[in-house]
Amino acid sequence: MDQELQKQLKQQFAERVNFSPSDCEHHGRDPAHDKSLPPDAVVYPLSTEEVCQIVKLCAKSKTPIIPYGVGSSLERQVAAPQGGVCVDFSRMDSIVEINTEDMDATVQAGVTRESLNHYLRDSGLFFPIDPGANATLGGMASTRASGTNAVRYGTMRTNVMALTIVTPQGDIIKTGGRAKKSSAGYDLTALYVGSEGTLGLITEVTIKLHPQPEKIAAAVVSFPTLKNAVTTVIELLQCAIPIARVELLDEVQMKAIRLHSNIDYPELPTLFLEFHGSPLSIKEQIETVEAIAAENNGGEFNWAERPEDRSKLWEARHEAFYANRSLQPGDNILTTDVCVPISSLPQCILETRADLDSIGLVAPIIGHVGDGNFHVMLLYSDAQTDIAMAAHKRLVERALKLKGTCTGEHGIGMGKKEFLISEHGNAVAQMKKIKQAFDPDNLMNPGKIFL
Amino acid sequence: MDQELQKQLKQQFAERVNFSPSDCEHHGRDPAHDKSLPPDAVVYPLSTEEVCQIVKLCAKSKTPIIPYGVGSSLERQVAAPQGGVCVDFSRMDSIVEINTEDMDATVQAGVTRESLNHYLRDSGLFFPIDPGANATLGGMASTRASGTNAVRYGTMRTNVMALTIVTPQGDIIKTGGRAKKSSAGYDLTALYVGSEGTLGLITEVTIKLHPQPEKIAAAVVSFPTLKNAVTTVIELLQCAIPIARVELLDEVQMKAIRLHSNIDYPELPTLFLEFHGSPLSIKEQIETVEAIAAENNGGEFNWAERPEDRSKLWEARHEAFYANRSLQPGDNILTTDVCVPISSLPQCILETRADLDSIGLVAPIIGHVGDGNFHVMLLYSDAQTDIAMAAHKRLVERALKLKGTCTGEHGIGMGKKEFLISEHGNAVAQMKKIKQAFDPDNLMNPGKIFL
Repeated sequence: MDQELQKQLKQQFAERVNFSPSDCEHHGRDPAHDKSLPPDAVVYPLSTEEVCQIVKLCAKSKTPIIPYGVGSSLERQVAAPQGGVCVDFSRMDSIVEINTEDMDATVQAGVTRESLNHYLRDSGLFFPIDPGANATLGGMASTRASGTNAVRYGTMRTNVMALTIVTPQGDIIKTGGRAKKSSAGYDLTALYVGSEGTLGLITEVTIKLHPQPEKIAAAVVSFPTLKNAVTTVIELLQCAIPIARVELLDEVQMKAIRLHSNIDYPELPTLFLEFHGSPLSIKEQIETVEAIAAENNGGEFNWAERPEDRSKLWEARHEAFYANRSLQPGDNILTTDVCVPISSLPQCILETRADLDSIGLVAPIIGHVGDGNFHVMLLYSDAQTDIAMAAHKRLVERALKLKGTCTGEHGIGMGKKEFLISEHGNAVAQMKKIKQAFDPDNLMNPGKIFL
Repeated sequence: MDQELQKQLKQQFAERVNFSPSDCEHHGRDPAHDKSLPPDAVVYPLSTEEVCQIVKLCAKSKTPIIPYGVGSSLERQVAAPQGGVCVDFSRMDSIVEINTEDMDATVQAGVTRESLNHYLRDSGLFFPIDPGANATLGGMASTRASGTNAVRYGTMRTNVMALTIVTPQGDIIKTGGRAKKSSAGYDLTALYVGSEGTLGLITEVTIKLHPQPEKIAAAVVSFPTLKNAVTTVIELLQCAIPIARVELLDEVQMKAIRLHSNIDYPELPTLFLEFHGSPLSIKEQIETVEAIAAENNGGEFNWAERPEDRSKLWEARHEAFYANRSLQPGDNILTTDVCVPISSLPQCILETRADLDSIGLVAPIIGHVGDGNFHVMLLYSDAQTDIAMAAHKRLVERALKLKGTCTGEHGIGMGKKEFLISEHGNAVAQMKKIKQAFDPDNLMNPGKIFL
């Protein structure tokens, strides 16, 4: 690491810059990768202005800059393959402004979704995007995150209204605005959402809020076959049921969750459902969904109406990642993230299940199937690495053939750079033109997105 | 115009290229501007490949290229201030693919929204975005259009899933895809939506479709004051009523419409409302809205339940532009397009009405107030030009101070280039970097968006 940079960082950030190997190791790792690719330093800024200072200092010595929220991204977005300075946003955790009448909020990038919702609890509003982990808003914007209730409330693409950005040159720009719509120039907000820190650093995020639903009801229902479960999802979407969450867990996933969470549902393909609305509208929705499930050989609905029962249910769902690890302790884990048009979902899931069974890997399937998005968690020993990688490649090829995407919500990071080219072909050259124009020295999160 | 280009266009496009002054004049004009800034030639391609040919031919002689749908944009987006070749998409009017199960459609850029909806009439689906004019999907994507029912169904920003683009170098790229969500690389789709032809030519558009509502009901209700009408809108939005359209017409606008359309509503501030949903949900919505209106001194609701009555009502609304012209025949017209956060709408509209009244211009106000977006149509004689321009400038300053935008849905074009800078400051430099990286010779719709 550049000596002058090290000196300047110490001088300007004192105890808020850390060069210790343990802190650096921690910041170069994510839940899906045990091996760390550590930065050389971690800085904890308090303000957009301080982020500018860091960027300007790093630019002088052409040192890479890697943004860090809580480190819950899964594609090595936080790794520092070329070393450099990690910008940890955890102390930029202020809620800047809540506009209840306009249903929007502006927060610093390090605010987590749970702390935002805790803050909003008495306002009648909430922020629905829920990727499972208690991620920061900045991180969620960076990876274009979504999660269990995107089927109803959209993704970060549709919920981010405005951003404050520190450019690779250390300038502050504001993109978008608080009006509900605008046709004023290029949509820089949408460009930065999903750019994984490669075009600049997001320091503040303005997001849409939504009214807390008058009533919430959740249910679990099992099916004899995976096909029955998937068909139920497609039919309920076609009836335009405004369902808030619909998660599919296959029999392998249910086994893992039973072992891990002490929840007593059968080891069968299962849907976890949630309904939001007025009591009347929920009643209508439930009647329709129960009828559709029954036609597809669905079992009894297990209802969770009390908040604590719903929490238990969704915690079990969100713990799936850790539940799966405990299926084969010590194994590596590879999380896939394809998303296909809904009509192709049965084919994609069923072919994938058959493929996985034929190669003998333990591989639970869990999915935000209302969006056509599902995850396979491939568990594999070091000796099975090639088998697992090949299965992932076949899965992505299958999804692309069905007009889908290699990643619905996790991003490209370091793990899917080849797939980006398979998916977008020569459009990747246009993306690279933007990267080159904004960041000619390739200092912003280098080694991500592009080969 | 370059002789060699002229020769090549004739050779390759025969009767599908036109150099006649009348055709060129026609293509350089829009409904808000009588004076044409004509291109030197108009070409009518049939396919994306033909668009590539045109772009490559023009690039050789560095000739500007201007895309044209039906010419209904309002900010001179179709003008050719430096001459050049207009690419008229009217013959690229094929519907490429409808996926009813996935509720999406892919169409050539020249398909109009009415012809798409006509094609969809028996499918149970429709495309809701309705800017009033029977615009093409390519044009609507280019200006990030929206219109009367964006409050319920979103804008082109949220409804375009994928694009086929011919780049300034004449390459074909595909952006986005048919999956409901993706985190694969930069969001080029969102970048091209709203880029007004300055980054390349949109040749195909993939859009979301929506289920045709089970039932539709429309109503008209008048209020003694503008403030009563605006407050009603805010309160109904805060109750999370999923209203499909809510249009505000002030007393001047109602006068113009009465004169023009032979519709018999009082000359008072008025809301035009439309409700979509199940009979049960519509009943719920209507009860709530009637109660809110009554609390704000609203009059009787005039209901239009039959399709022909609804059509009459919305035609009267869509004819507002022409109705206003007939208020002061021979006058110039300047259409404004600010959009502000909902909570600031009363202040913005009331201050604007007072301002306009004080300067003595005839200026009806009409708005998609559910989005915070409203249009003032300033009618002015040549002698009043400075007064009208100054009033527009004050209106934009007022909107920006209230955290709004200078354009909710019309785009920047040639008319709002200064306002783009007032609104986005140094972020405009980032936009220009993209323009420069994609189109270094500035051939794609030059003279638009950027000063």
